[in-house]
Amino acid sequence: VIRVLIFNEFLHENRMENVKEIYPDGMHAVLAEMLNGEEDISAECVTLFNAEGQQNDLDALITEEKLRETDVLLWWGHCAHQLVPDSVVNRVQRAVLGGMGAIFLHSAHHSKPFRALMGTTCNLSWREDGDLCRLWVVDPSHPVTRGLGKYFEIPHDEMYGEPFGIPEPDKLLLLTWFEGGEVFRSCCAWRRGAGKVIYFQPGHETYPVYYLPEVRTVIKNAVRWTAPEGYRDFVLDCPNVRKPGAE
Amino acid sequence: VIRVLIFNEFLHENRMENVKEIYPDGMHAVLAEMLNGEEDISAECVTLFNAEGQQNDLDALITEEKLRETDVLLWWGHCAHQLVPDSVVNRVQRAVLGGMGAIFLHSAHHSKPFRALMGTTCNLSWREDGDLCRLWVVDPSHPVTRGLGKYFEIPHDEMYGEPFGIPEPDKLLLLTWFEGGEVFRSCCAWRRGAGKVIYFQPGHETYPVYYLPEVRTVIKNAVRWTAPEGYRDFVLDCPNVRKPGAE
Amino acid sequence: VIRVLIFNEFLHENRMENVKEIYPDGMHAVLAEMLNGEEDISAECVTLFNAEGQQNDLDALITEEKLRETDVLLWWGHCAHQLVPDSVVNRVQRAVLGGMGAIFLHSAHHSKPFRALMGTTCNLSWREDGDLCRLWVVDPSHPVTRGLGKYFEIPHDEMYGEPFGIPEPDKLLLLTWFEGGEVFRSCCAWRRGAGKVIYFQPGHETYPVYYLPEVRTVIKNAVRWTAPEGYRDFVLDCPNVRKPGAE
Amino acid sequence: VIRVLIFNEFLHENRMENVKEIYPDGMHAVLAEMLNGEEDISAECVTLFNAEGQQNDLDALITEEKLRETDVLLWWGHCAHQLVPDSVVNRVQRAVLGGMGAIFLHSAHHSKPFRALMGTTCNLSWREDGDLCRLWVVDPSHPVTRGLGKYFEIPHDEMYGEPFGIPEPDKLLLLTWFEGGEVFRSCCAWRRGAGKVIYFQPGHETYPVYYLPEVRTVIKNAVRWTAPEGYRDFVLDCPNVRKPGAE
Repeated sequence: VIRVLIFNEFLHENRMENVKEIYPDGMHAVLAEMLNGEEDISAECVTLFNAEGQQNDLDALITEEKLRETDVLLWWGHCAHQLVPDSVVNRVQRAVLGGMGAIFLHSAHHSKPFRALMGTTCNLSWREDGDLCRLWVVDPSHPVTRGLGKYFEIPHDEMYGEPFGIPEPDKLLLLTWFEGGEVFRSCCAWRRGAGKVIYFQPGHETYPVYYLPEVRTVIKNAVRWTAPEGYRDFVLDCPNVRKPGAE
Repeated sequence: VIRVLIFNEFLHENRMENVKEIYPDGMHAVLAEMLNGEEDISAECVTLFNAEGQQNDLDALITEEKLRETDVLLWWGHCAHQLVPDSVVNRVQRAVLGGMGAIFLHSAHHSKPFRALMGTTCNLSWREDGDLCRLWVVDPSHPVTRGLGKYFEIPHDEMYGEPFGIPEPDKLLLLTWFEGGEVFRSCCAWRRGAGKVIYFQPGHETYPVYYLPEVRTVIKNAVRWTAPEGYRDFVLDCPNVRKPGAE
Repeated sequence: VIRVLIFNEFLHENRMENVKEIYPDGMHAVLAEMLNGEEDISAECVTLFNAEGQQNDLDALITEEKLRETDVLLWWGHCAHQLVPDSVVNRVQRAVLGGMGAIFLHSAHHSKPFRALMGTTCNLSWREDGDLCRLWVVDPSHPVTRGLGKYFEIPHDEMYGEPFGIPEPDKLLLLTWFEGGEVFRSCCAWRRGAGKVIYFQPGHETYPVYYLPEVRTVIKNAVRWTAPEGYRDFVLDCPNVRKPGAE
Repeated sequence: VIRVLIFNEFLHENRMENVKEIYPDGMHAVLAEMLNGEEDISAECVTLFNAEGQQNDLDALITEEKLRETDVLLWWGHCAHQLVPDSVVNRVQRAVLGGMGAIFLHSAHHSKPFRALMGTTCNLSWREDGDLCRLWVVDPSHPVTRGLGKYFEIPHDEMYGEPFGIPEPDKLLLLTWFEGGEVFRSCCAWRRGAGKVIYFQPGHETYPVYYLPEVRTVIKNAVRWTAPEGYRDFVLDCPNVRKPGAE
């Protein structure tokens, strides 16, 4: 069983009525329910804010031990990236480098852990007009795009446009065509240390994007693909060694 | 001075009135005139067919000596890829691996030298509706995209769509948004051996694409960027060597 | 079950006494026996020459149908690369691009299918002094290096040295230190089309390299890693399409 | 003229007699003298400690303005990485992403700016036995390896061994063979944002490595190659945009 930890800010869903209507218990709840519907996946959640709008102590929730028991971390954040403590960011980064999978959704392009893993600005252009999005499969043979046709559509979502300030992906998986005229590398894969990282662009909070079958397919595929392949080594050191033969 | 050799089939311009109107002396002539207008570039042409519609002997025209004196090769072909002799293909491939730059334009995605250098199908989807194309700059810092804004437009061109059967580019430079709804990796860079390779998608024969300023900027930039950086070694061998110190 | 096809020239083992002693039934037989000892792998062989030294008709043996039933192809060739018909080379290349895994061993760096897939010279330097080789694991988290320590040794093998004329690997997996003073990228991974390709350097015919446990571990790992992940599409076309929505 | 800024801790040279003998005015002075001997390069230095052993205020020395006037930054640090303020690290990272070149020398593999740009541990194995090092040229056609033969040697230097915890380099340039039995990716190139980054391994403080002609050739080549190619944009933003055509 793949153990997934879903992180969500859980802010918009509490404070904005239109978002609350779409995700009454938070988008993490919708993502968790979807993943827990799969036999080979077990998901739980951690949020920056609780349902009463009080801030949780992430440092106590996302511990090294917790991450050791996590195969894949999903991350959704938007307006409170700065409230994630650096201790948690370092821990998450180390866990990924040690083999944990990580999937960054939508506005998590600017989350601290994603930026730390990429080393770049992760900037992009954006426009919030509820464009129709058509996501084209660039590599139909990759496990993350399994079960998709040549493309799929999202009726309305925020536009994210190029240039996207990321290191060249190891593998570009999806490209989005936006009705308004832009394009975006909307699903990208990188290996960092022993861990696999996916960025997947859809999911603005004001549209019911995470209920769409193809979006769910991508997320489920990504969970399975980023799950560690047997190797999970949290000992990340820089050893003084002896000559081969003299150990 | 960068010595450019432009290869063109020169078939459509001879046989189709609407193409002849756009490129009366062939598109190679238009490309050559543009490049020869630059102080640091000197271009000449070789065509598969001559103005009278007779086939040229490419084997005698694209010799190893000729390629040795060529810094950058431009290639446009469409319906007569199979008429290019394998001897020429091997020679071009070796020249690129030895350091010559190569720029493949539009339907040259299926040319023999491009396929030989990529090792893949180089297949794509296509649709000939004269779509408006908007080409987005993915990397504004790269020499090949210098002088372009965030994007530029081509009023009408053939649609080429993903998936594009190429090895992951070393650097993705432009992404095209097509009015009809598709996207395409329209400018890509690879290093192969000592040579630099660019694929640039615009340029269907029935539209005056190679007269557009931004398209010309990309081609001129690409010529300068793919030109050999000092190294030009046609000796491509597999030597039996002695131990270091015993040579 | 992963269906493996092992190609071997089967020339040295027939003609050279010292090689025959090591691999009396050919090195393909040793590789097949090893792979068939695994529950999840089923291997069979095809050779360029038979045990009587007569040349086989590869065109009739490595058919499109045969490749369709093959998950992973292993290839060992050395002095008879030119005897492999181009029809077979094209078929193998297409099968890999369509999703079949391929593992090229030792002197198969110069085999026609490997060169066709890479698009480069695949040249290297070589020295046949029976050096001790120490193969260092560059990425201990990759499935292909699973079960290896920090390094392993081959008491005697041919030296292959840099520069190695390949496209930058997607992933460098092993680096060899040679007693005589050279280094080499001895295990590299690429994705080409839907297929995964591994080059693995050890295995000169005059040393019993394919009996060594760590060498076997790498080959078994590579078979499992290059096996298609569900996708296997031999339809590799370049379709004329309709607009999204107008199909 | 390429404006180079050389950062050095300047600690070992002050505190260890054997290092002081090799680099009486600090290794930055030796590097600066070498670079200032080139017509097209102008170098200056900033050190973490001054000649009297007092700590400098890096925050006041490596300002945004200073970096704006710097084309290429060289960085040597070893035991005082933690004394570099995060404000400086962020500034350097942003400058690189905005187009400044950066060359990290030897133990700067663990410097904060390098780790920030890579996003990985940058760990390695090490052994301090003064091994003979033989550095093999993996890509003889790259500007950074220009003027080197097939390999060059360093009589004595610290061993750095694989696995090296870096993202796959865009281009591997040199591989080191160590007398004691290890190998290392000793010169690697990455593009990050608009900037080029080089890591170059030689240069332990107790050996006169930076006086060796080939080591100097690599550093001078790297300075010229990482220098910005015309583009230098410190505006690194994430803009809210309008539709194409509606700007």
